[in-house]
Amino acid sequence: MLKRYLLAPGPTPVPPEVLLAMSAPIIHHRSPDFLPVLDAAKKGLQWLYQTKNDVLILCSSGTGGMVGAVNNFFNQGDKVIVINGGKFGERWTKICQSYGLKVDEITVEWGYAVKPEIIEEKLKKDKEIKGVFVQASETSTGVYHDIKTLASIVKKYEDTLFIVDAISALVAHDLRTDEWEIDIMVGGSQKGLMLPPGLAFVSVSEKAWKRAEKSRLPKFYFNFKKERENLAKNQTNFTSPVTLIIGLNESLKILQKEGLENVFKRHERLSRATRESVMSLGLELYSKDTPSNAVTAIMTPPGVDGQAVYKNLRERYGITAAGGQDRARGKIFRIAHLGFIDRFDVITAIAAIEMVLKGMGQPIKLGTGVAVAEELLIS
Amino acid sequence: MLKRYLLAPGPTPVPPEVLLAMSAPIIHHRSPDFLPVLDAAKKGLQWLYQTKNDVLILCSSGTGGMVGAVNNFFNQGDKVIVINGGKFGERWTKICQSYGLKVDEITVEWGYAVKPEIIEEKLKKDKEIKGVFVQASETSTGVYHDIKTLASIVKKYEDTLFIVDAISALVAHDLRTDEWEIDIMVGGSQKGLMLPPGLAFVSVSEKAWKRAEKSRLPKFYFNFKKERENLAKNQTNFTSPVTLIIGLNESLKILQKEGLENVFKRHERLSRATRESVMSLGLELYSKDTPSNAVTAIMTPPGVDGQAVYKNLRERYGITAAGGQDRARGKIFRIAHLGFIDRFDVITAIAAIEMVLKGMGQPIKLGTGVAVAEELLIS
Repeated sequence: MLKRYLLAPGPTPVPPEVLLAMSAPIIHHRSPDFLPVLDAAKKGLQWLYQTKNDVLILCSSGTGGMVGAVNNFFNQGDKVIVINGGKFGERWTKICQSYGLKVDEITVEWGYAVKPEIIEEKLKKDKEIKGVFVQASETSTGVYHDIKTLASIVKKYEDTLFIVDAISALVAHDLRTDEWEIDIMVGGSQKGLMLPPGLAFVSVSEKAWKRAEKSRLPKFYFNFKKERENLAKNQTNFTSPVTLIIGLNESLKILQKEGLENVFKRHERLSRATRESVMSLGLELYSKDTPSNAVTAIMTPPGVDGQAVYKNLRERYGITAAGGQDRARGKIFRIAHLGFIDRFDVITAIAAIEMVLKGMGQPIKLGTGVAVAEELLIS
Repeated sequence: MLKRYLLAPGPTPVPPEVLLAMSAPIIHHRSPDFLPVLDAAKKGLQWLYQTKNDVLILCSSGTGGMVGAVNNFFNQGDKVIVINGGKFGERWTKICQSYGLKVDEITVEWGYAVKPEIIEEKLKKDKEIKGVFVQASETSTGVYHDIKTLASIVKKYEDTLFIVDAISALVAHDLRTDEWEIDIMVGGSQKGLMLPPGLAFVSVSEKAWKRAEKSRLPKFYFNFKKERENLAKNQTNFTSPVTLIIGLNESLKILQKEGLENVFKRHERLSRATRESVMSLGLELYSKDTPSNAVTAIMTPPGVDGQAVYKNLRERYGITAAGGQDRARGKIFRIAHLGFIDRFDVITAIAAIEMVLKGMGQPIKLGTGVAVAEELLIS
């Protein structure tokens, strides 16, 4: 028997009560049965997003929400800044370019966060910049960009929207949509919200809705104005992914019971315990700046292939973590602590890392990292 | 206790074994666990579509597949024909126009099928027409368009693609993708495939792939070339809706066990029984041409509001059918016989219609329609 543990940065494990709720007989999305379901989801997402803005619910992967954040608010030739510090930063650039936007790409070395003053300088110099795109948590590197400071800079420019990919950060980080004035923030179901993939969420500020009036890019499937009109009637523009929205309400209930502050504290604590434990084993973090609370990227010791660690964890120990992507491939492996995860999941991960590295001939003293984790996670 | 019956044309009921499969612990879409899952889904869809072409799997509602059928194969200014005989015909027009295509709309009176010779004449006269769009089953009217004949016309024009929205027809109708040379055919999960909403499927012929090379419309989320490359590796371009794809394999198993020919026969038989039964009650069908095997649209007797029938069915009898859309609103109600539906579902629907109409003061002899259904559905 190989019991399986899913510790990848999405999809994350789905709690049994969510699976159960999703197994109820399906209801019709245009029937009165569905209206209170969508109403609850809408309000629950506003609570999670800390916003009074609309939070749209889309039937797509998170990337669909990112596409909608471009094609609903911009026009061909618009100048925008993309902060690119990893694979998902790259994705913003590709999406913007595919719609004909002019991208000024701020390349950030993988493993580092953007220096907010670079954005401030750019915006001061060029009044034509229509938007600044960034990841909250860059999943490929395990880095958190300073969303609060970036928002405080961008909000000073009335023609510039601040767009955050919070797909992996939502739930793991305290992101204050209204207080910080984040214009557009994208989330996804299969991360902190503990659901299967298939839903994207996008909050939209009034500043952004005003801009949307001017956008002439093709938009049919991701048409936010229509989604907003439908949301007001507790509907979605096209067939609602009923089952996932029912699951979403169950996930939101779990999070609401824990309380938002406790949810953030848990993620902070688990991620800190993960980092301290792996460092106690002599391993180095890939993130050199503020780390993500969603996922920890760990550099493998010299001579050890990150993909081999990933494979060993999976095949010998039943643990699905993640390897490195693109230029980080082979150099790192990643452990998520996101969503339906507690202290014993972290301890399991650390124990497995110790055993795998020891098995690969590394000078690991078994139990060292686990002791550190226990110390930090004691009640 | 009000036991609920879902007899709407999507979402349709999900079989217990599919719900069960979808409740298994989630797996990671980039891990080796997922490769055989997607491989099975890919092959199962080719079986269902009766094709050797790629059948792409998208994380979206069916409409997303329709959008992809436009933005991957055409350019701004391309002339296309849209056959518009209902709400979903209208949708083709709106999608094409939102991407700047020039639409020559063949308006077909609601309740009728297109006359194929009209398309033949159009194509003969104008060699510039790049595509012909149609619904197989137009869900809003319960009409089936003659896909076989239309395909035989369009295939003679080497610059013209034939694009079929088979979202509600797939599984209910024998649609021979390869034999008839359908270039692009769109399906969805929440209809004949007996799954929750959230997946779209699109088959693409070699003729269409060649055309795709010339398309310059923006395409990021629905990028079929990238989906094709990923499909070859048993992956999807973005995060796979893992749970739904696992459910899809379970649904395909059920259909494969029944056999494709039997699946089509069952739908034909159930739809015929529904039609004959309601006609025996003195009701008129909305469809004046070949009816859809997926859904029957029934005209209410003079002075009876279709929405009141819908409401009565739902609230008094626990049956979720569908009302009429747009211009058919109030004039019709619709009963689906699609997917996980057997003879007793049809008998339930007919019995409920009899009781509802009787309760609304109509001169119905109870049991008349049910007797006809039993006669036609006897083993």
